[in-house]
Amino acid sequence: MQGIFKTMKRLIEDLQWRYAVKKYDTNKKIPAEIIEHFKDVLRLVPTSNGLQPYKFLIIETPEIRQELRKHSFNQPQITDASHLFVFCSYKTLNETHYDDYIYLNSVIRETPMEQLSTYAFHLKASLMNRTEDQILNSNEKQCYIALGQLLQTAAIHRVDASPMEGFIASKYDEVLGLPAKNLTATVVCALGYRSEEDIFQHWKKVRKNKEDLFEII
Amino acid sequence: MQGIFKTMKRLIEDLQWRYAVKKYDTNKKIPAEIIEHFKDVLRLVPTSNGLQPYKFLIIETPEIRQELRKHSFNQPQITDASHLFVFCSYKTLNETHYDDYIYLNSVIRETPMEQLSTYAFHLKASLMNRTEDQILNSNEKQCYIALGQLLQTAAIHRVDASPMEGFIASKYDEVLGLPAKNLTATVVCALGYRSEEDIFQHWKKVRKNKEDLFEII
Repeated sequence: MQGIFKTMKRLIEDLQWRYAVKKYDTNKKIPAEIIEHFKDVLRLVPTSNGLQPYKFLIIETPEIRQELRKHSFNQPQITDASHLFVFCSYKTLNETHYDDYIYLNSVIRETPMEQLSTYAFHLKASLMNRTEDQILNSNEKQCYIALGQLLQTAAIHRVDASPMEGFIASKYDEVLGLPAKNLTATVVCALGYRSEEDIFQHWKKVRKNKEDLFEII
Repeated sequence: MQGIFKTMKRLIEDLQWRYAVKKYDTNKKIPAEIIEHFKDVLRLVPTSNGLQPYKFLIIETPEIRQELRKHSFNQPQITDASHLFVFCSYKTLNETHYDDYIYLNSVIRETPMEQLSTYAFHLKASLMNRTEDQILNSNEKQCYIALGQLLQTAAIHRVDASPMEGFIASKYDEVLGLPAKNLTATVVCALGYRSEEDIFQHWKKVRKNKEDLFEII
């Protein structure tokens, strides 16, 4: 158990260290290897039925970040953080999404498509009898699993992050050309390194007591 | 950079190791210290405006787990895993939730309530003009941030987990007496140790290529 106590202690320290950065150091960039690692983690995130009903946009063009900032109540993280990830959900799911998934399954698990037909049938049946709203809603939730893992991963590597819901999704969709791709912006995560001037790093974390959060039944 | 490469490699190995366990070893229990650590992690999860609009139920009573299994398409993880976490969202948010949060803020940050009145006003205003559906929807998304972090934490400590959406929420609510607490079951996570007999541990993970998941703009 010795090693696990050390790992537990370190993880809690990492999570205590993180906070939603408001002011980034514009001179510091996240090394490419770490961004690649974030992508590896996001790729492995589990999702409902394995469908991964989302896409991650990494916004590098300064003019586009400037434009998005206008639609984010002018929050400086949008332009000033090293990297900006926009988590986008598929607005609808159609036969093609399932067929692509079954095909991927067949390739990775080296299983002939014919052997997957019953599985494919049940998968499609269980998912097709949902309304479009329910599908989008579910796809958006999957983005939040990914967000949770990205935030934890960033903290582990002592990279700062700001999860952001304060933006106008319809404007993001327009600027990023998402409707044509059947996507919509769900949640945003700025990543980089805190500025020494960001006063929020000195504020204590406000969290409920465990007694108010957990109940044994 | 040496240390960080090792940390990155290990995290990817942990995430590759995990899979949605279907059959648990009923003899193995997660040590209390590790459960406490999971609770510490869940307590620190960031949420929209810091409200933590959820509660985590840990179901220990065997009869209740048996009952919940009936409403989970008879999936054995519900009864056989070492632990069962039910993530519950607040169905509505009222003045009290905000007042409690502001009060917690005042205590933890040692700031007089009067100094927080403008903050409290804006917080309430921005949240009150949402429909009940939008509020529940948002609260449920916050559960998924927590789910993402619990899954990653479990993998880091080599504890197995099964995120589960295949259950009838209204039945869970009934069995767990949630309506009286203004809560509803959002997502379930079984935790424990995989059975050697679970064939799924040998199946390759099916994930999209990075080219299909990420786009640089």
